[in-house]
Amino acid sequence: MLSFNMLEYQERIRKTKQRMQAEGMDLLLVTDPANICYLTGYNAWSFYVHQMLVVMIDEEQPFWIGRGQDASAAKHTTWLDEDHIIPYEDDYVQSDVKHPMDFVAGVLQKKKQDNRVMGVEFDAYYFTAKNYIQLTAGLPNAIFKDATNLVNWVRIIKSEQEIEYIKKAAKIAEKAMRTGVDSIWEGVRQSDVAAAISHAQISGTEDFGGDYPSIVPLLPTGEKTSACHLTWTDDVLQNGDPVIIELAGCYKRYHSPLARTVVVGKPTDQMQYIANIVIEGINMALDAVKPGMTCEEVELVWRKAIEKSGIKKESRIGYSIGLNYPPDWGEHTASLRPSDHTILRPNMTFHMIPGIWLDHIGIEISESFRVTETGCEVLADFPRELFVRPNIRLA
Amino acid sequence: MLSFNMLEYQERIRKTKQRMQAEGMDLLLVTDPANICYLTGYNAWSFYVHQMLVVMIDEEQPFWIGRGQDASAAKHTTWLDEDHIIPYEDDYVQSDVKHPMDFVAGVLQKKKQDNRVMGVEFDAYYFTAKNYIQLTAGLPNAIFKDATNLVNWVRIIKSEQEIEYIKKAAKIAEKAMRTGVDSIWEGVRQSDVAAAISHAQISGTEDFGGDYPSIVPLLPTGEKTSACHLTWTDDVLQNGDPVIIELAGCYKRYHSPLARTVVVGKPTDQMQYIANIVIEGINMALDAVKPGMTCEEVELVWRKAIEKSGIKKESRIGYSIGLNYPPDWGEHTASLRPSDHTILRPNMTFHMIPGIWLDHIGIEISESFRVTETGCEVLADFPRELFVRPNIRLA
Repeated sequence: MLSFNMLEYQERIRKTKQRMQAEGMDLLLVTDPANICYLTGYNAWSFYVHQMLVVMIDEEQPFWIGRGQDASAAKHTTWLDEDHIIPYEDDYVQSDVKHPMDFVAGVLQKKKQDNRVMGVEFDAYYFTAKNYIQLTAGLPNAIFKDATNLVNWVRIIKSEQEIEYIKKAAKIAEKAMRTGVDSIWEGVRQSDVAAAISHAQISGTEDFGGDYPSIVPLLPTGEKTSACHLTWTDDVLQNGDPVIIELAGCYKRYHSPLARTVVVGKPTDQMQYIANIVIEGINMALDAVKPGMTCEEVELVWRKAIEKSGIKKESRIGYSIGLNYPPDWGEHTASLRPSDHTILRPNMTFHMIPGIWLDHIGIEISESFRVTETGCEVLADFPRELFVRPNIRLA
Repeated sequence: MLSFNMLEYQERIRKTKQRMQAEGMDLLLVTDPANICYLTGYNAWSFYVHQMLVVMIDEEQPFWIGRGQDASAAKHTTWLDEDHIIPYEDDYVQSDVKHPMDFVAGVLQKKKQDNRVMGVEFDAYYFTAKNYIQLTAGLPNAIFKDATNLVNWVRIIKSEQEIEYIKKAAKIAEKAMRTGVDSIWEGVRQSDVAAAISHAQISGTEDFGGDYPSIVPLLPTGEKTSACHLTWTDDVLQNGDPVIIELAGCYKRYHSPLARTVVVGKPTDQMQYIANIVIEGINMALDAVKPGMTCEEVELVWRKAIEKSGIKKESRIGYSIGLNYPPDWGEHTASLRPSDHTILRPNMTFHMIPGIWLDHIGIEISESFRVTETGCEVLADFPRELFVRPNIRLA
């Protein structure tokens, strides 16, 4: 069941402990589902209840602590021994009387860890304020330190095996985008386009099936292309509608995102103008990428490329990607934006998405890429253009 | 774009303010995406960055505070005036220097709200410990109270319009389950089954398209049926494999979940025995449901029904459902379990899912139901049985 060999997991634990040591942390309390998966292999849709991975600096294996009915998922999907899988009873679930973090505090007390320095992912998904309040109340002798993104930063450079998975994800992204573009016609329901994309994402290719991406297909249409994170309705597409498709292929939880914009019928001059500028900017930025550069330097190449166009772009143009769970496929480490001084290294992977969202129109064209020894490799092979689809109403 | 008329939104705000008043709260800070949608209509996949709805007891409209590029989604999907939509700049996003809650604190200070009593959803998804730390630091004169599930409890009794949406979701659930069951054969990849289900969920029916459910199809197979929250792999199904399908239909973010178990080839006596007991228990519990009963009384009917079978069930057998966003379609209010004294009222809706997970086999058969004036109405019309599919390998 494991997606990686044990040496790779051991290396991840080693690097994590190295960072813990540098921060003076004896324990690391991990709630980000991607980080739990990264360190142990754990893979189940159980993050809707509280669960936690406890890495102890002086213990080889971390402890998984979660709901009783999910302990079986820990046995099936992780490399942990059974005595490192600690279930809590079901009446802790979504209760206003008992809280799972009281249980976690009890476990740490029993293990005589309650007076140690604990790194906690303060700003991770699913680490709620209540988690923190209960933990600090239950462990009054512990010292808590912010460990937000500690493991995420270990994740930023991908192994060869991870790159192989991301490349498979990119193949799925190509297929899903092709399916999405080809399913757009005047008169088609948005939901039918989304359904076709989702089918392609999960069925994958003949050689390998797909996993669920951390974000559903985003599909803003018409004037609502100005709102990048809209999904779909069951309204039908109209002649002249622009349609943004933002999706990812996903393989064993590794993502390769991709965005394109499609127009039903003829694009306006404005749409085509923006698309051309964005494509030129992406081309120049991708051409410039090489190891040793900083993230902000990549963004600057883009910024200069579009400078004379009259188009302004205030938001970041990309971010690190890889292993993830809902609600985000971004890694929360490096962003392609001013003041991000992260130095690009081989096998970092990014989604470059310089979306342009004006008052009544948005255009998204994006690429995911891997930093190589000499430059970068674009992950998905998909025409970098504004797509035009027939304004012929289907029967 | 609004899914409900303004009177319904106003009523929701009124009931929310009533609860705020009872708790002595001047402000309510809402992060649960379902609660934000419930109160304003806001609907976008933007909950992967921090956002917040602020309800002030003495202000008619709440304030939406979120990322700049999502303000357009707020304009397109909510009933809020533009001056109640407050965007923050993009460099607050996933930064270790600036935090969106600093911005929120600044907004509340400017509006002279910084010395008031604030209800905060301490245990809501996406309200991180960091959010709380930054808010308390930025608003030292405010008093914070726990408002976890305050709005969720307003949501528990559904309106006629909400029931109509849930019934549409149930139609989609029927179609998706039929598609899932029919796509199971020996030799089929799990991912192809999941793809077919997802397509059916999103394409919906001829009359209405589907929305994305808050949880992807769960598809544990073989021995891994003991682990209820596993998704799928691209392994092929084998003769003798049990397959659990847990899914929901979703319409305008309203859910109707449904679970069934399917066997490739002949079920073992044990599988059939468990399935029969579960079905009998569900039948008796559903027959017993009527308004005025408590949640624990419903569970007791189930518990007594299976008492002599030798099968034990420690976890809750159901929970309230309705409007939701990833990662959960459960409402986090009432659960069908001992010590839950919530009284059933007409138009409450539940997912009754008494899953049985043993060491090497799990069986799930479930129904979603609405409490009526006299009893209950099962939402999806789908045979309540253990399904058997051909052990014929496809070409």
